[in-house]
Amino acid sequence: MNIVILAAGQGKRMRSELPKVLHPLAGKPLLAHVIDTARALKPTTICVVHGHGGERVRQRLAAADLTWVRQEQQLGTGHAVLQALPCLDPTRPTLVLYGDVPLIRSQTLQRLIAAAQSHGGGLALLTAELAQPQGYGRIVRAADGAIQRIVEDKDATPDERRICEINTGILLASTAALMRWLPALGNANAQGEYYLTDIVGLAVGEGLNVASTQPADAWETEGVNSPAQLATLERIHQRNIAAQLLEQGVRLCDPARIDVRGELICGRDVFIDANCLFEGRVELADAVEIGPNCVLKDVTVGAGTRIAAFSHLDTAVVGRDNAIGPYARLRPGTTLADEVHIGNFVEVKNSSIASQSKANHLAYVGDATVGSRVNIGAGTITCNYDGANKHRTIIEDDVFIGSDSQLVAPVTVRRGATLGAGTTLTRDAEADALTLSRARQATVPGWKRPVKNKKS
Amino acid sequence: MNIVILAAGQGKRMRSELPKVLHPLAGKPLLAHVIDTARALKPTTICVVHGHGGERVRQRLAAADLTWVRQEQQLGTGHAVLQALPCLDPTRPTLVLYGDVPLIRSQTLQRLIAAAQSHGGGLALLTAELAQPQGYGRIVRAADGAIQRIVEDKDATPDERRICEINTGILLASTAALMRWLPALGNANAQGEYYLTDIVGLAVGEGLNVASTQPADAWETEGVNSPAQLATLERIHQRNIAAQLLEQGVRLCDPARIDVRGELICGRDVFIDANCLFEGRVELADAVEIGPNCVLKDVTVGAGTRIAAFSHLDTAVVGRDNAIGPYARLRPGTTLADEVHIGNFVEVKNSSIASQSKANHLAYVGDATVGSRVNIGAGTITCNYDGANKHRTIIEDDVFIGSDSQLVAPVTVRRGATLGAGTTLTRDAEADALTLSRARQATVPGWKRPVKNKKS
Amino acid sequence: MNIVILAAGQGKRMRSELPKVLHPLAGKPLLAHVIDTARALKPTTICVVHGHGGERVRQRLAAADLTWVRQEQQLGTGHAVLQALPCLDPTRPTLVLYGDVPLIRSQTLQRLIAAAQSHGGGLALLTAELAQPQGYGRIVRAADGAIQRIVEDKDATPDERRICEINTGILLASTAALMRWLPALGNANAQGEYYLTDIVGLAVGEGLNVASTQPADAWETEGVNSPAQLATLERIHQRNIAAQLLEQGVRLCDPARIDVRGELICGRDVFIDANCLFEGRVELADAVEIGPNCVLKDVTVGAGTRIAAFSHLDTAVVGRDNAIGPYARLRPGTTLADEVHIGNFVEVKNSSIASQSKANHLAYVGDATVGSRVNIGAGTITCNYDGANKHRTIIEDDVFIGSDSQLVAPVTVRRGATLGAGTTLTRDAEADALTLSRARQATVPGWKRPVKNKKS
Repeated sequence: MNIVILAAGQGKRMRSELPKVLHPLAGKPLLAHVIDTARALKPTTICVVHGHGGERVRQRLAAADLTWVRQEQQLGTGHAVLQALPCLDPTRPTLVLYGDVPLIRSQTLQRLIAAAQSHGGGLALLTAELAQPQGYGRIVRAADGAIQRIVEDKDATPDERRICEINTGILLASTAALMRWLPALGNANAQGEYYLTDIVGLAVGEGLNVASTQPADAWETEGVNSPAQLATLERIHQRNIAAQLLEQGVRLCDPARIDVRGELICGRDVFIDANCLFEGRVELADAVEIGPNCVLKDVTVGAGTRIAAFSHLDTAVVGRDNAIGPYARLRPGTTLADEVHIGNFVEVKNSSIASQSKANHLAYVGDATVGSRVNIGAGTITCNYDGANKHRTIIEDDVFIGSDSQLVAPVTVRRGATLGAGTTLTRDAEADALTLSRARQATVPGWKRPVKNKKS
Repeated sequence: MNIVILAAGQGKRMRSELPKVLHPLAGKPLLAHVIDTARALKPTTICVVHGHGGERVRQRLAAADLTWVRQEQQLGTGHAVLQALPCLDPTRPTLVLYGDVPLIRSQTLQRLIAAAQSHGGGLALLTAELAQPQGYGRIVRAADGAIQRIVEDKDATPDERRICEINTGILLASTAALMRWLPALGNANAQGEYYLTDIVGLAVGEGLNVASTQPADAWETEGVNSPAQLATLERIHQRNIAAQLLEQGVRLCDPARIDVRGELICGRDVFIDANCLFEGRVELADAVEIGPNCVLKDVTVGAGTRIAAFSHLDTAVVGRDNAIGPYARLRPGTTLADEVHIGNFVEVKNSSIASQSKANHLAYVGDATVGSRVNIGAGTITCNYDGANKHRTIIEDDVFIGSDSQLVAPVTVRRGATLGAGTTLTRDAEADALTLSRARQATVPGWKRPVKNKKS
Repeated sequence: MNIVILAAGQGKRMRSELPKVLHPLAGKPLLAHVIDTARALKPTTICVVHGHGGERVRQRLAAADLTWVRQEQQLGTGHAVLQALPCLDPTRPTLVLYGDVPLIRSQTLQRLIAAAQSHGGGLALLTAELAQPQGYGRIVRAADGAIQRIVEDKDATPDERRICEINTGILLASTAALMRWLPALGNANAQGEYYLTDIVGLAVGEGLNVASTQPADAWETEGVNSPAQLATLERIHQRNIAAQLLEQGVRLCDPARIDVRGELICGRDVFIDANCLFEGRVELADAVEIGPNCVLKDVTVGAGTRIAAFSHLDTAVVGRDNAIGPYARLRPGTTLADEVHIGNFVEVKNSSIASQSKANHLAYVGDATVGSRVNIGAGTITCNYDGANKHRTIIEDDVFIGSDSQLVAPVTVRRGATLGAGTTLTRDAEADALTLSRARQATVPGWKRPVKNKKS
């Protein structure tokens, strides 16, 4: 099978610099959704017809299995498919999809293919029943149910306007037939465009039996022409994702308040509280709990770990039975082993922390290698940047870092060492010893508190 | 009255290690909702029939007023109630409830009891009118309205399938009659189970007039068989809670974005912004304002206090006219008096802070007793943990703690003392004096800034 | 035209100390919405009839173009308009609005005015078609469609109860006619009140042709009598705002999870993630991205700036291509130039920061003037408050502040200076030099770690 994806439209109503088909739905361009669905059908060819913002579209989505055809002028859908004909295998049928109709299911398309085959393979249309069909082309059928033609809304008689079955634009046709039909299309209509749907009349004229099938859900064939339609499809898609998660046994506090922009893989007995956002590839093992208002991007979380409210994890690996947050920030390159605690207002970046270590309060751990059973006191800061280069801090097993210490990298705190509170560590700290840098505590005699200035 | 609660089902579709009736709705196990509703009816006996995961259920919910009966094999609802019979007072009627039908209202059950009494007390069914009754047992009534039998969906004639009144399973029966009927039930059906509903046929056969009543809302009798159904009931329950709060005069910015998992008691003129979560017992006095995205658990908040966005309070007592947050974290054991300010990125744990004191920025106050009119500077940290034990910090009235100070507990800062910025306090600070530990400021001659390494 | 706004009702069902018309919708009192809509019609007079909590209402909303009339006793809507008559220009018509019907559109009112003019100008009613008209006064029309009278729900015949066209209370009348009608109203009804709607009967009795028109949406004429109704209108209003933003090309992740309490002005290609709150006047330039759960109040944000999750900005000016957050707090008086980075757990207050400077981690920058290309290390704190007065910190261009430094204001860090980590800066730092205050690092011989106390 060939698949042609029409992706040349400008999308003026999007009011955006970004070509319409690059607008993201669930974090992925509209066109990429359609391409992925096309790939699921394992076609011989996927041909993308691009036009407006075309180079940008092509660069963004280039892949070895895609053929790109440029439609220089926007002369209609029939003209667009005509541009793709030279790339298609004439011995196989061609499925036409749309880069701005992102939620079409591969199962629906497979039923369309089956419908075509059972009707001789000439032409099969995907149609839909709408309660409010105004504005769409209606499917006119004979008394025996055979499709006769598609009538545009503005050309329809009052009786035809009452037809609720509409043309979605998605169709499967014999490629050989397309080669006859497409060059024969005219543009004698209000828009002066060559309409792909006019092939229905040509097929019926040839005595072909036009097949049809319908999507399971109306949203499958809804297109995006405006930010409002994009937002509507975004919420439908997110509700579908939430429904799948629930089906798999994930416990969601509110299926209307979760956003998944990528892949969310969950073990058993995972609980996700309200208003969480997942981006990229996130994997949550058994019995993981995610508190409210968390953001996780490209993260793996081990079994039994609890991530409390307001945590923000990006490109991190978190082990088993960790206690993360609230207000914990894990930045790229963070690896936490098992039973690690990262508490409030703590930022970890490009660091590994071994098992049973804790940084529970107000700390910055960057470019550090931290051993097991380490206690990083409140306010501790790894001074990893000297203004020009970044250096690593090594904290070995069983270290106790006193509060508000600064570890000026490169520096090592050896096994079992203790740093006194407020220490500025500029040289390595000895194992099993107390190291500190501390000025003598003194009381200033005769000092008076400042008094409030009089306003002039 | 006796109440039997059937709670033995496995709940395979929950896809969870947790027994179904322990899954939480609004933070409380499904079964606990039903038990609490049962208690509201003041029965003589509450008998819980448990089976799958039974020990875990029993341990989790054990209470003096509950009798536990184990149903070893899952042989149907009739069999389950049969197991409970020995525990019931045969002179009083028996109400049958379900551990996975959590939102049934006691008012509805009281109407069921009244219906039974007015019909002779033999048997009363709770039925419901559903727009989509498919799959449920239908209530077949005679021309005079008398209930004749319940027909299962798959055994129903086309006419019977059009009946929209369905059996909810909840019923009230004479216990003496149950003792006749239950042993007489057969299991000659597709599932090979003993169905409680078959007692309807037996009652009618005895010439009894079967009573019925209906719940005010359809969700009262909806059961939980899957995470999706649990999420649906969770949202219905939360909407009901929000409606009650509004009814009481609480101002909610969005009734669809509040979660209450416990008890939320509000004074007059309380405002709760979007996306807040309340757990346990939370009490908000008059004119309290809760900003967006806050989490409060087991907290009491005094009149006029404002809690700003992203605050997280757990097991704390907050006085009047406090200003808390944004991003304030109050942990267990926190007591704040009146007119206290706790600002951004400040964590308070197991500490009391007297009136008019402030910790406005980036601080950790743990295991401390703080007096009145104290100013705790930005970055201040109480070093309460020495790696082995926790110690207390005492800060008396009118103290000024300079920024970034560390108070190494046990230590006392006496009344009116001032600590210089960056002080590491290891001994008590004198009253009304300036204490500091500070190295001399120096400029290093001939020092050159590091330059960026060339990448190899 | 004269406009009379009735705002004297108590609003008992609000259960609030605040007069009903002062309750905020989208952050603005209900009455202020109506006054703003009234102003859009450019009337000669706006007369507000106030009563309950009247002085508070008047003080809150006082403006030069408003005339305030006090209705001492709540004797009904007819009585209320009667109080306003002396303030009205008798040669111009009078439009009656309600202080608790906040969402009426000026376009609807303009159609009402046009309807009145085309019917002779005597009286025009705004009516509405409701699916559930129970409780409202119905519009009774003659066979030719002419309005005959308004019948209250409780006085209606069964036939009249089936009328779905109801009286909204909003009307436009000849002021000269009002001067005849209002004194003629009676109060012989259940409430003992003088009803404004009774003027319809008087008008018909005079042979006048009563005009009518309807709002485009039913919510335009919904009133607020309870917190639940207020919450309903709040969400309708927020959905309308979201729809307008989408129409303008703003990309919203979820139109049901945005709150705008004021004015949100967006450039092209602005993206706003879930659950954001905007207050006051917020202006976002082209290609600004706002992450999830942000709060912005009275902020201007330059093109290309990205504000990450959990950021809280209040009364700040943010330049182009900034990277703000997550967890960044900008407080009043903050001005950021271009390409500034403010990272996690950083608070900036009453400070200006010039281009390309960074404060990426855990810092408090208050009352500071920061130059370009400055790096403010993690944990840096400006000690701006000495307990009595606030002082400024000056950080000149190209400065590097080592981590955990305290800058004791007033103090200046000169161009190109470097501060060592942990420095307490009490005097100005020299340009292009390293300044620090640091105790010598030492290891304590013979020191033993504390051991855990035995519990007594």
